[in-house]
Amino acid sequence: MKYGVAIFPSKKLQDLANSYRKRYDPHYALIPPHLTLKHSFEASDSEIKDITRTLNLISKKYNPFSIQVTKVKSFQPVNNTIYFKVEPTAELEGLYEDLYTDVPGEKPEYPFVPHITVGQKLSNDEHSDVLGQLDMLGIDHEEVVDRFALLYQLDNGSWTVCETFHLGRD
Amino acid sequence: MKYGVAIFPSKKLQDLANSYRKRYDPHYALIPPHLTLKHSFEASDSEIKDITRTLNLISKKYNPFSIQVTKVKSFQPVNNTIYFKVEPTAELEGLYEDLYTDVPGEKPEYPFVPHITVGQKLSNDEHSDVLGQLDMLGIDHEEVVDRFALLYQLDNGSWTVCETFHLGRD
Repeated sequence: MKYGVAIFPSKKLQDLANSYRKRYDPHYALIPPHLTLKHSFEASDSEIKDITRTLNLISKKYNPFSIQVTKVKSFQPVNNTIYFKVEPTAELEGLYEDLYTDVPGEKPEYPFVPHITVGQKLSNDEHSDVLGQLDMLGIDHEEVVDRFALLYQLDNGSWTVCETFHLGRD
Repeated sequence: MKYGVAIFPSKKLQDLANSYRKRYDPHYALIPPHLTLKHSFEASDSEIKDITRTLNLISKKYNPFSIQVTKVKSFQPVNNTIYFKVEPTAELEGLYEDLYTDVPGEKPEYPFVPHITVGQKLSNDEHSDVLGQLDMLGIDHEEVVDRFALLYQLDNGSWTVCETFHLGRD
């Protein structure tokens, strides 16, 4: 089964992201707006039991922390994905490192850029238009992250939450 | 904010439900296949903290339990919803009662019929066709439930998991 680990931001930020994702993200219906901490990886039913224990340990290492979203950016020229850039924090970096060091699943080649996708698979024209619009609107948002979620993927490509893990709580 | 409580069945049962929901359930993209334990209710940010504590206490009262799905049924003549009927168990009944007794939100007028919706808002002709097909195919499935989830609804009508609660675990 395919698993992944993500942070779901507040309803406010999810609603804002969805107002763009609805038109510009083909994954709109597959998963709510999220910040990916660990990309999809394969695990068996028995492996996931150990992984769940590990995720529990990792979650205890970090206290709830603030994230800031201050920019809309794009991964161009790598691809046409447009995203809310989340400013890196020690906790985000630490969680990312731990989730690749202590849990099976290969680390991507590209570096960790914390983000919430709002558009992808856009044509070049759409990409410029949407990025221009969002750039003008601007974004300035801060909130506290106090949990992350382990998810698994269904056959239709959508994701179901398997379990949530509270940061820093015993 | 609107909240609800539900059980997500195994990936296997979700995939099976989705194979019908894709065509016959307009809520297909809003939430993965689920068994509703408590219908949507309003709660403020401060209320939900207390409610989360209550849900934690409720989850400790019940051990993981088996559910059986043996029939495809319809709520006709009340409405045209087609569902996998989940055989009632003491745990399902207990969870349902506790979730309405100990957590704000009014109990529906109709009795609790544990189910996983696979089709709704069908025309009468579609309803008969789909129910006939599913009835012929039959279903016989058993699995263990060991958790439930608190969800909240986004502005677009979709649901995000807020937190998962393990049954019987300290």
